[in-house]
Amino acid sequence: MVLLKIGGNILNDPAALAGALDYFAALTGPAVLVHGGGRRAEETMRQLGLDPVMVNGRRLTDAATLEVVTMVYAGLINKRVVAELQKRGTNALGLSGADGDAIRAELRPVSEVDYGFAGDVRRVNAELLKMLLDAGLRPVLCPITHDGRGQLLNTNADTIAAATATALAGVGMRVSLRYCFELPGVLRDVADPDSIISEITPASYASLRAEGTVGGGMLPKLDNAFAALAEGVAEVVIGDLPALRAGRATVLRADRPG
Amino acid sequence: MVLLKIGGNILNDPAALAGALDYFAALTGPAVLVHGGGRRAEETMRQLGLDPVMVNGRRLTDAATLEVVTMVYAGLINKRVVAELQKRGTNALGLSGADGDAIRAELRPVSEVDYGFAGDVRRVNAELLKMLLDAGLRPVLCPITHDGRGQLLNTNADTIAAATATALAGVGMRVSLRYCFELPGVLRDVADPDSIISEITPASYASLRAEGTVGGGMLPKLDNAFAALAEGVAEVVIGDLPALRAGRATVLRADRPG
Repeated sequence: MVLLKIGGNILNDPAALAGALDYFAALTGPAVLVHGGGRRAEETMRQLGLDPVMVNGRRLTDAATLEVVTMVYAGLINKRVVAELQKRGTNALGLSGADGDAIRAELRPVSEVDYGFAGDVRRVNAELLKMLLDAGLRPVLCPITHDGRGQLLNTNADTIAAATATALAGVGMRVSLRYCFELPGVLRDVADPDSIISEITPASYASLRAEGTVGGGMLPKLDNAFAALAEGVAEVVIGDLPALRAGRATVLRADRPG
Repeated sequence: MVLLKIGGNILNDPAALAGALDYFAALTGPAVLVHGGGRRAEETMRQLGLDPVMVNGRRLTDAATLEVVTMVYAGLINKRVVAELQKRGTNALGLSGADGDAIRAELRPVSEVDYGFAGDVRRVNAELLKMLLDAGLRPVLCPITHDGRGQLLNTNADTIAAATATALAGVGMRVSLRYCFELPGVLRDVADPDSIISEITPASYASLRAEGTVGGGMLPKLDNAFAALAEGVAEVVIGDLPALRAGRATVLRADRPG
């Protein structure tokens, strides 16, 4: 099965979103979509007189912000994406983490930063997702979870994608986790979009880091990807939509295929 | 199975909502919840500089209004209700009509009034709801539907409740449709809350109308209820939460039980 994650840069661009949904609808076999937030939540917050605050790339989620992200992620974006997939003949079904107890999270502990109503994933309900997939449905997950005690929580969409892929691998599915992002893949030379590294294994990842070929913002993404591979995900693919379509995106594998 | 509809007056009052969710969580056997909108959508519209317009008790839904009701009904209200039910140990799963193609609607034709993106229900996916119920889940439906061509539509929640009850009866379920509203039941004397009519059949309904005992705003509600009974719904119960709890609310039946 394929788990496709699309981020804010795609949600902010109607043509890019349509292309990503075309790609998702054209996949064969079971598939899950995870979407992030995008600019719309911040626009709505500003219209409502709220001031978006980010720390270390994560949103500070006070009570008013949680209301807006719940409205925008679980309401507007999720239902638009689902309706657009239905139009494409894909039987999509949108879920927050609260729906069917799909994703249970816990309030992130306050350390140096109090992120407010931010949740760290505790458990993905793979049985629910498998039941929906077996019935021919395609779950569409938004980055809102719950704590099981009535509290909704704002949760990072990359983390939801990785945790969901791992959970589905745990119930015996062969999972291809695909991150659709702004570059065609992991590049040897950031200035050269043709320098896509076709495959990375744990051994070659160590070399790439040692020689300084990959670094900066790619490191947490790749670390998370290799953690998912270590927990049973079959492959992680990273690239933009044209590269994913053409099979040119970077493929991460736990081991070279025999 | 029980299909409970809760309206705006309950959603506007946190204590009343908590009571209704306690009641729903305490039901045994399969159950579906349908919720309406409430004041929150209008508040958010006004905060965003939009001007809510109602004609004949229905909202004019322009593109900006559709965005807000999608955010508030399918996002904020639906996910809060689901999270609160999860807290009560009820495995709720929120759905708009687009999710799993649960409720297909069509744009209401423009006659004297152009209601904008308002949808009339065409088809309820009873197979999907039955599959979820059989898996121990409780669907929570919000009044947002879709047309199958990518368009979300704003739809009356009473109509969704009646159409869903009818569809579930059509797949062989014994459906008790319960409207939780602001009066304890259909009253002989609107000024006397103790004058609840315990049971109404098509024959007694004709008499009550002829003698003028029921009229005004109750007529469309009762007409719709008897239409649902004619299409196979086992009973329709109308009352406020205390009356529903105590079994004192008005019960409408197609025929007197033998």
